[in-house]
Amino acid sequence: MPSAIPAIIATNATDPLAPGTIERRDVRANDVRIAIRWAGICHSDIHTVNGDWGPQRYPLAVGHEIVGTVAEIGADVTEFVVGDRVGVGCMVGSCRECANCVSGDEQHCEKGMIGTYGAIDFDGSVTQGGYSTEVVVAEDFVLHVPETIPYEAAAPLLCAGITTYSPLRHWNAGPGTKVAVIGLGGLGHMAVKIAHAMGAEVTVLSRSLAKKDDALKLGADHYFPTEDPETFTALRNTFDLMINTVSAPIDIDAHLDLLAMGGALVNVGLPPEALPVSVNRLIRGRRSFAGSNIGGIAETQEMLDFCAEHGIAPEVEVTSAQDVNEAWERVLAADVRYRFVIDTTTIA
Amino acid sequence: MPSAIPAIIATNATDPLAPGTIERRDVRANDVRIAIRWAGICHSDIHTVNGDWGPQRYPLAVGHEIVGTVAEIGADVTEFVVGDRVGVGCMVGSCRECANCVSGDEQHCEKGMIGTYGAIDFDGSVTQGGYSTEVVVAEDFVLHVPETIPYEAAAPLLCAGITTYSPLRHWNAGPGTKVAVIGLGGLGHMAVKIAHAMGAEVTVLSRSLAKKDDALKLGADHYFPTEDPETFTALRNTFDLMINTVSAPIDIDAHLDLLAMGGALVNVGLPPEALPVSVNRLIRGRRSFAGSNIGGIAETQEMLDFCAEHGIAPEVEVTSAQDVNEAWERVLAADVRYRFVIDTTTIA
Repeated sequence: MPSAIPAIIATNATDPLAPGTIERRDVRANDVRIAIRWAGICHSDIHTVNGDWGPQRYPLAVGHEIVGTVAEIGADVTEFVVGDRVGVGCMVGSCRECANCVSGDEQHCEKGMIGTYGAIDFDGSVTQGGYSTEVVVAEDFVLHVPETIPYEAAAPLLCAGITTYSPLRHWNAGPGTKVAVIGLGGLGHMAVKIAHAMGAEVTVLSRSLAKKDDALKLGADHYFPTEDPETFTALRNTFDLMINTVSAPIDIDAHLDLLAMGGALVNVGLPPEALPVSVNRLIRGRRSFAGSNIGGIAETQEMLDFCAEHGIAPEVEVTSAQDVNEAWERVLAADVRYRFVIDTTTIA
Repeated sequence: MPSAIPAIIATNATDPLAPGTIERRDVRANDVRIAIRWAGICHSDIHTVNGDWGPQRYPLAVGHEIVGTVAEIGADVTEFVVGDRVGVGCMVGSCRECANCVSGDEQHCEKGMIGTYGAIDFDGSVTQGGYSTEVVVAEDFVLHVPETIPYEAAAPLLCAGITTYSPLRHWNAGPGTKVAVIGLGGLGHMAVKIAHAMGAEVTVLSRSLAKKDDALKLGADHYFPTEDPETFTALRNTFDLMINTVSAPIDIDAHLDLLAMGGALVNVGLPPEALPVSVNRLIRGRRSFAGSNIGGIAETQEMLDFCAEHGIAPEVEVTSAQDVNEAWERVLAADVRYRFVIDTTTIA
């Protein structure tokens, strides 16, 4: 029978998060039970609880950057043993049969992937996320987390890491390519580290000069403030790839002009408003405006292994169950460098 | 000294075209003098003369779909001999040294390519287009037109042909890919023929059912009217590539939803207004909204050879110098299937 598991819970769209319990299913043949040790805080968690992306089913524990150890495995589990360091990201299920699932793009499952929290699972239950001490997940959606990645810093890789790694890989960032990262937050700082590790020449475009020192320390080669119009003159026709991590609307036309021949501006941030795009900016230089959504499971494992190999990990600030509401306020104020991670031992 | 050559001329933005003369330079060492036999009418000609794309220098002869025979060659010309059947498209010069020129994308020359008409040439003169009986062009911008392509039908390949061939090639249209062509005009009908010849499964999206029979005759496998909302339900997540030949604004979001995983919607039409694009349409399925502008010189030659090999050519209606103003009216009314070509023997 399902267990009641301690968690940090939203009971509606407006009240602060509070301690509570959620149900976790018994381990099935293909399931892994994970003792959660660290849970990253993603801006999406806040949007979801606030109802910005539609009404939610409360009570809800959010969190899709989950790292811990295997506590129990089902009879048919082959890829994990008890004690393995593992992670879970933004999805816990997909049909596994459609063309996109077969090609490894489970995040684009034609029947809809099952999100780690707030989604209806195959058994009709509502999925519950990582702000908790345990989670039960089908092994196909569990990742191996290399032990050389600092334990407390690994969780954000499961969302911020893969969300930036996937487009950098897909659009061939590497030696000889010029990559711009727009916005230096949770996603942006990982984009800088990964693009740099891939061998690309990395430029950060951030509103002001405030984060310049940080950006260079993270691995950026150049830094330009977008509040200075001169930036848009100096950098015309420069970048092979621009990763836009900003969820607020930006001037897409002005940024498209910074793309070199055949370049792509790829949004991983999701502004709610439609953005005006002038076709002449696309026709000039055969440019693309594109989007990318997390990454597939195999690609997520590849990203984790890549980060371990290159010795890169998110910059994190550890917080607690007691301070989670304050942490959310600071995320909303962009006052974190660069990702909060909840120490789940503080969840009662 | 320059020759005065008969031409069809615009003397300002509003009066009808009329007979007149333009100057052509003497043949230089690398030049080819072409006796023009056929000149296609492109919608761009009308936009340019009307001043829709900025003020113009009149008198101006437009026309950038030019086919004829070599009448004279300069001392250093190596690729052509007198009598060769040749063509000239949308450009007659570029720097030949920048990265884009070197890579064969002269249309994206970093110093700006020199348009076939209304542009300032290297010597300071204003270029004059193909509504004329002769043109002098540097041999690097002259194409060989295979004699197996019907002579009177070849001219539109130099613009409508390459404009659609280039993105089809760049985005890998071929066996196993599903291509949609939006709009069935001068560009669209060539996109259908070329995509079909490349082996793609071709769908035409046109406003009404009016052109269905034509589309299927041209090589389309399927046809859907965009005025029927059901089209946008039936075709969700279908196409690997969509070529948008419509220069008026269309609902980009609705069309992006028709792209399969990783698909691209590529504009070759150039609406003047910025178009609203919702980022979630791009993020879903890693889709791209892109643009493409004609093609390079080597690619244009490749396209001409491809059309000869596959026995495809534009559908044309021959017109005369005397009827050119009426032809323009019919182009504006979309009343031509599918391209007018001027018989230049009618130019006094």
